[in-house]
Amino acid sequence: MKLRDPLAIQNLIYKGVPMAQSFGFQVNEVHDDRVLTRVVYREEMQRPGGTVSGPVIMSLADASMYAIILATLGPEEMAVTSNLNINFLQRPAPADLLAETRLLKIGRRLAFCEVTMLSEGGNGRPVAHATGSYALPG
Amino acid sequence: MKLRDPLAIQNLIYKGVPMAQSFGFQVNEVHDDRVLTRVVYREEMQRPGGTVSGPVIMSLADASMYAIILATLGPEEMAVTSNLNINFLQRPAPADLLAETRLLKIGRRLAFCEVTMLSEGGNGRPVAHATGSYALPG
Amino acid sequence: MKLRDPLAIQNLIYKGVPMAQSFGFQVNEVHDDRVLTRVVYREEMQRPGGTVSGPVIMSLADASMYAIILATLGPEEMAVTSNLNINFLQRPAPADLLAETRLLKIGRRLAFCEVTMLSEGGNGRPVAHATGSYALPG
Amino acid sequence: MKLRDPLAIQNLIYKGVPMAQSFGFQVNEVHDDRVLTRVVYREEMQRPGGTVSGPVIMSLADASMYAIILATLGPEEMAVTSNLNINFLQRPAPADLLAETRLLKIGRRLAFCEVTMLSEGGNGRPVAHATGSYALPG
Repeated sequence: MKLRDPLAIQNLIYKGVPMAQSFGFQVNEVHDDRVLTRVVYREEMQRPGGTVSGPVIMSLADASMYAIILATLGPEEMAVTSNLNINFLQRPAPADLLAETRLLKIGRRLAFCEVTMLSEGGNGRPVAHATGSYALPG
Repeated sequence: MKLRDPLAIQNLIYKGVPMAQSFGFQVNEVHDDRVLTRVVYREEMQRPGGTVSGPVIMSLADASMYAIILATLGPEEMAVTSNLNINFLQRPAPADLLAETRLLKIGRRLAFCEVTMLSEGGNGRPVAHATGSYALPG
Repeated sequence: MKLRDPLAIQNLIYKGVPMAQSFGFQVNEVHDDRVLTRVVYREEMQRPGGTVSGPVIMSLADASMYAIILATLGPEEMAVTSNLNINFLQRPAPADLLAETRLLKIGRRLAFCEVTMLSEGGNGRPVAHATGSYALPG
Repeated sequence: MKLRDPLAIQNLIYKGVPMAQSFGFQVNEVHDDRVLTRVVYREEMQRPGGTVSGPVIMSLADASMYAIILATLGPEEMAVTSNLNINFLQRPAPADLLAETRLLKIGRRLAFCEVTMLSEGGNGRPVAHATGSYALPG
């Protein structure tokens, strides 16, 4: 059962991973082939140099992949992260982080996703890129 | 300049990534070939099923790798995470997470690390395993 | 110095990695933002079930990333693979493998690439997806 | 059904991935907790500088993980590589490559492995390190 309501997905993620709420994760748009998500910038995310810290970026990647799986399979599914691989490409600006997430594959037992992350108002080049796989319950 | 004082390394990480302090990261032991670190368990780390959430595990992996690089190169170095790959092996218990981190290589420009993570008092099998690379400044 | 001639890039790769020639690697198109490459199918690539084996797919990913770096930086550069991460999405058909490769970032010391691989004449969905980083000489 | 005969495992891999035979892959020792494998060095594996090329190293990692899964689960299992992540640590010598492979986890549906690779007669430090996951048939 597909889910298309960004807020419904966001609330499911808040319930599943309370930490996502505390770091300012938002689901903004849900399309057939991609989901747009965001982390609202806050001071405590900084690391020296005034940029968003790595744990926030990794958490955004993970929550965004979870969002597109919920969008595709519906709320019954309790996907569990199996593998996450992330490349950090440039220091993000001290600003909101935007993520665009796509499914690479959704199989019977595993889903594979890809996430490209940018700084809002930045230079247009990605800050980080992640891929991940999720185990789906039988 | 090698650093062997766990608290000194911990404080450098708290300064660099304030979020590490807020999620209860500790440096416990520093040896020539490995560093032992920990995340002190707290309720808000949970996800449904009573286990520590993925973002906490990823943050532990990243902070632990940073700790062994500080231990080896000293406080002058501002290593930046380049790549992090993590496999989630089993749901952690609702308990402290323990990490053992080793250097795979420390080169002139890149350092490579490996982290094995377990639940304290758990079944003795790893909860997650991560590898990562860090860019070292010239 | 940019290189735009597919055959010139292909020959540089054959010289650098003779094995690429022996497994039928070809550079087909070089664009500003992407490179199209191919592995010509041969019987000995098979694994049971009649599909192309994993080592061929990984070699295609690696050679394709090397191709886009040569296209962007020219023949003087001797990039060295630092990290490669690959997700196998479905069994390929017993047919040529096609790869589309993009640069995620080209920095002073590291380049990051992404490769999507499909079977020619297949179901249109990717067979595998890889990301990788390459160390660039000073 | 556990398999403890190195040659039996090697032959199963040769049957499954004929390319493994052609690149000189051998299974040398099978223990309860680890498998030792090797690639016999040959001229055509070289890349400029006289070292073994990346595709050979990746193929060794993949075949070695397959070997430990066969050793643990027996010949009935047709494990399929799901994810492979490899860090290249230093240029190998023009010599045999030795691999030590361990299981990180063997579950009902996924197995996770780790491989450390060295050059025979080299400086004792690893040439490459890989982790991977394999889908196990129901």
